[in-house]
Amino acid sequence: MELLKRRIAEDGRVLSDQDLNVDSFLNHGVDPELVAAMGREFAGRFRSVSATRILTIESSGIAIAYATALELGVPLVYARRRKTLPHGGEYFTERVPSFTKGIVSDLYVAKHLLTPEDRILIIDDMIAGGDAVMGAVRIVERSGATLAGIGIAIEKMFQPGSDRIRSLGVQVESLARITSLADGKVEFM
Amino acid sequence: MELLKRRIAEDGRVLSDQDLNVDSFLNHGVDPELVAAMGREFAGRFRSVSATRILTIESSGIAIAYATALELGVPLVYARRRKTLPHGGEYFTERVPSFTKGIVSDLYVAKHLLTPEDRILIIDDMIAGGDAVMGAVRIVERSGATLAGIGIAIEKMFQPGSDRIRSLGVQVESLARITSLADGKVEFM
Repeated sequence: MELLKRRIAEDGRVLSDQDLNVDSFLNHGVDPELVAAMGREFAGRFRSVSATRILTIESSGIAIAYATALELGVPLVYARRRKTLPHGGEYFTERVPSFTKGIVSDLYVAKHLLTPEDRILIIDDMIAGGDAVMGAVRIVERSGATLAGIGIAIEKMFQPGSDRIRSLGVQVESLARITSLADGKVEFM
Repeated sequence: MELLKRRIAEDGRVLSDQDLNVDSFLNHGVDPELVAAMGREFAGRFRSVSATRILTIESSGIAIAYATALELGVPLVYARRRKTLPHGGEYFTERVPSFTKGIVSDLYVAKHLLTPEDRILIIDDMIAGGDAVMGAVRIVERSGATLAGIGIAIEKMFQPGSDRIRSLGVQVESLARITSLADGKVEFM
């Protein structure tokens, strides 16, 4: 998606050969017009998978996933992330490490929000190690729902998450595929 | 806003005389059409305050704040919440307790995302004790920006946050004003 790649080139900050900071327009500061365009792009690419629900992970996936859900006309659910689980047992939970935060946390989704009849499209802002998205995939599996596809705004292809999600056998789409962050430069595929 | 009040009456769950759970449509599960309508409603009520930026607090304010920002054509920033601050000092930070989570956390906003020229509209999903919103207000003050207004989707008027934000001298709008959750029933003003 040229609009996103141009914005990354202009306003993304390469923090290291592993880390790209996009907090001025995507996951702290948010450019609503850009995000709306991303939602339209995801909706177009995934219209044929007939998703019944969008799943993302708080917090940085929420705006993009909401824009996609609005465009596709289906509800959204975002997995919550806590170090301690809420009381009561009516949750699907998965423990995941976080590449960017360096901590372990629990993802959870209320059971009443995922049903075996659902076809789930997972949307997230960026993939690095892929642990959070893989945790969301396991939650989908445990709910009995069908995984219909995975959409990632920014895919760092040189980190493990890229291969992990592409081996799942579902449609995967990313809007900006980055092959390297070496020497302070963003290289797109 | 009748649409929101009707949805609260139908799908909100009163957990106690202090707690209302709206996780099936607003802050875990999200109904995109409802949230888009809330964004239009906030945009209409606040158009005259000439906000240059929307500020919310992760995670549950993000979808509503995004919808409002898109409608008003201004950027969004969401304060992040951490128990430990990120490295580097380029952040406005405020320590706040959380009524619902029972923990203390730090809100932070990157300094480059708030400028003294900004007119900030704060949007959040629900107000109870008001600590998170008041933390956001202090961040606005410290940035030198002007607080232009506060919009709350669901205002629990019998808890302290309601009076706290209404004593600030700025326009405050809420879309559903709840006067009581006693006896398992939601009473609207």
